[in-house]
Amino acid sequence: MATPHEQLQPRVDEAIDAGEMARLRQLLADHHPADVADLLERMDSVQQHRVFQMLDDELAASVLDEIGRDATRDLLDKLPLDDAALLLGRLPMDDAAEILAEDVPEKQDVLLAAMEGDKAAGIQRLLRYPPDSAGHLMTEHYVALRKDMTATEALAEVRRMDAIAETVSELYVLDDQGHMQGVISLRELINLAPSAVIGDHMTTRVISVQPETDQERVAHEVAQYDILAIPVVDNGRRLLGIITVDDIIDVLVEENSEDILRFGAVESGSVDQPYFTVPLLRVLRNRFGWLLLLMVADTLTGAVLRQFSTRLAAVVQLSFYIPLLIGTGGNTGAQTVSTIIRGLAIRDVHFSDLWRVLRRELLGGLLLGLALSLVAGTRAWLWDRDLQLALVVGISIIVICTWSNVMGSLIPLLASRLGIDPAVVSAPMISTLVDSSGLFIYLSIAGLLLTGAI
Amino acid sequence: MATPHEQLQPRVDEAIDAGEMARLRQLLADHHPADVADLLERMDSVQQHRVFQMLDDELAASVLDEIGRDATRDLLDKLPLDDAALLLGRLPMDDAAEILAEDVPEKQDVLLAAMEGDKAAGIQRLLRYPPDSAGHLMTEHYVALRKDMTATEALAEVRRMDAIAETVSELYVLDDQGHMQGVISLRELINLAPSAVIGDHMTTRVISVQPETDQERVAHEVAQYDILAIPVVDNGRRLLGIITVDDIIDVLVEENSEDILRFGAVESGSVDQPYFTVPLLRVLRNRFGWLLLLMVADTLTGAVLRQFSTRLAAVVQLSFYIPLLIGTGGNTGAQTVSTIIRGLAIRDVHFSDLWRVLRRELLGGLLLGLALSLVAGTRAWLWDRDLQLALVVGISIIVICTWSNVMGSLIPLLASRLGIDPAVVSAPMISTLVDSSGLFIYLSIAGLLLTGAI
Repeated sequence: MATPHEQLQPRVDEAIDAGEMARLRQLLADHHPADVADLLERMDSVQQHRVFQMLDDELAASVLDEIGRDATRDLLDKLPLDDAALLLGRLPMDDAAEILAEDVPEKQDVLLAAMEGDKAAGIQRLLRYPPDSAGHLMTEHYVALRKDMTATEALAEVRRMDAIAETVSELYVLDDQGHMQGVISLRELINLAPSAVIGDHMTTRVISVQPETDQERVAHEVAQYDILAIPVVDNGRRLLGIITVDDIIDVLVEENSEDILRFGAVESGSVDQPYFTVPLLRVLRNRFGWLLLLMVADTLTGAVLRQFSTRLAAVVQLSFYIPLLIGTGGNTGAQTVSTIIRGLAIRDVHFSDLWRVLRRELLGGLLLGLALSLVAGTRAWLWDRDLQLALVVGISIIVICTWSNVMGSLIPLLASRLGIDPAVVSAPMISTLVDSSGLFIYLSIAGLLLTGAI
Repeated sequence: MATPHEQLQPRVDEAIDAGEMARLRQLLADHHPADVADLLERMDSVQQHRVFQMLDDELAASVLDEIGRDATRDLLDKLPLDDAALLLGRLPMDDAAEILAEDVPEKQDVLLAAMEGDKAAGIQRLLRYPPDSAGHLMTEHYVALRKDMTATEALAEVRRMDAIAETVSELYVLDDQGHMQGVISLRELINLAPSAVIGDHMTTRVISVQPETDQERVAHEVAQYDILAIPVVDNGRRLLGIITVDDIIDVLVEENSEDILRFGAVESGSVDQPYFTVPLLRVLRNRFGWLLLLMVADTLTGAVLRQFSTRLAAVVQLSFYIPLLIGTGGNTGAQTVSTIIRGLAIRDVHFSDLWRVLRRELLGGLLLGLALSLVAGTRAWLWDRDLQLALVVGISIIVICTWSNVMGSLIPLLASRLGIDPAVVSAPMISTLVDSSGLFIYLSIAGLLLTGAI
């Protein structure tokens, strides 16, 4: 099925070819900004700019927000500074802050200087917080109520704030100093009697985060408690801003892409760019570093082989089982890493569980190794009719599986402890790490057991 | 930082030890169902049941919804049938349907028979749709308006439906046959003049999905268009139900876990269970199948080695580069697979792009291979001072990288074409697949170029 931007494409081309700019403008205005962004994303830079200039300001701002990083940079570069600042000023402040911080950091200062003073100041407040933190995602455009307001007064306040507020689904009850006292939803509000007092009907158990909280953690809280917006408060529980659920969904989608890329050993620098629009050379740069590092680690495995070359030459059959043994080690390790990364992501597993995890994975590796060693040992015996060799293969599998399982759980846990995203412990990395150690284990066991032959 | 259920644990233990059941009941009622579920999840089965019985019906139903599959089964098994049916009847119908379909499929019929007739009928309608489809996620408890209603009448309808409707954020305008005519948000509604007519202020461009649409696709639509609920319509645009954003978030979190586990070659059967609560033997079963399959594939690599054993014996140095060559192939393949899986997931890449993808990855593999071959070739020359061998290693790297890149893009694309989740093409699978072919490529090139030696 064609996606909306694919259906839009031929009609836009037609309007451009016919020079019917009014029809083109109408066509774009009739579509969702996300679809217009998808369409522009696939145009060459010249046509992209031409079509972008045709959009009215509100649509143009939304498109800027939805489109990938390269296109955002490109479009902002081509606009006069004041126009660019104006468009950014039309966006929700968290979205504008994100563009300034991540897409055009080198123009951040000039663009802020060209914006209206209060808007620039608001965005600057967000930019003080670390990237990927709650502070970066929040907006200050929420609706604040007071405890002593009646439902009628509160509803009037909601209406008054309508043009400004990013969401009115959740309304925040603050004292004079801006401290959070409670929350009431619009749904609850419209069901109150007109004279009911807000303070009597608000929820005082408010789930909140702090501005420094990592965005993945924020997403976890929203997922856990099924809420439409989460307030960000300082240490004294003063309300600094709120994060709306649409931003949380974007975080989840982004983190999902990032995890898969990292786990496949690809730098996730271009995570918001569609596949075909990332310049090939940048893709290769994002991949080359890891490949090179892993290749260096692989030469270690080669060095182990070199070390044991006389043993391998004496019993040439030994080498036939190398792929099976190091392959199984790598696969077992990759399985464990993926289990632990997932556990850490959904906050099931913490570094403090280290010993419990290690005990569990040690036992698991041992049992998996036992089961696999029966298969591999039998296979070896059937192939080479050499009971000693079969024994070496079987025992090696047990030790290697246990070792890989332990390493596969230890490394991501240590990474999380050091504040590194555990998903950088990729499947290729763990495979490569256990390759050389697995080989060493195998050939050492062979040396111990095949004393007659070597 | 201790999570809420960790803070709750000692206080609950204390109350149980002191036999103060009233205090315990209050303590639990003061916490969010998700936290109570986390707490119960970590209790043994007997205590879990005892504490669960103490919850009031509404909290108990929500806890049942939040807790993992094993605990849900366990708790429902211990309840009298009528009590179990009553609790399920209190849940939103999509959540009840999910429990019946996924957690206790064998008791589905008896539980439905024990429920109130209209509730059971509603849930049965959802259960007709395939698992992981929009039909399973939707609720029929939305607010429907008519075009000719005034704002005042519409608001009265919203209030009337408050006890039943799952969300009132978005209100759906239907004709007499239930066909979708438009949508208006509660936010828009409360800003209308009392006598304004709904039909004049609704949005007629409504984004919707069909009941058969896959849940990942639904999540993508919600993410793309920043909406709080998405309507599910049949072919004639009759409204069947709506899916709320909290269910979409759950889908995203679940799919994220599933992708990471699958990409690490772990069956994702226990994806909603906390790490420590999945019985170890089930974990091992979820892992053993893949390990065994991959091990069998690894013996193929062993067979290739066996085939070329005379060549390896003649030039023993050849074997030292095997880990580097097949490792690099596997790593390159894993990178490509992760890039393609991500592209397919966010619907950037489709099967129809096959040739464009293959061209891009072919070129990418060639360039990566060229860069890596310089490093590996130099390394080989420095190590063994054998120019011919260095040439074999360098050329092999180029061919293997290109080959892995092509396979790494082709296989997930084919999987998606066949309706298989491309994330089952795991990093271990692609590594294993390119191991034997990479070895074959290497030793064949060696045979062609090292004619003097062999």
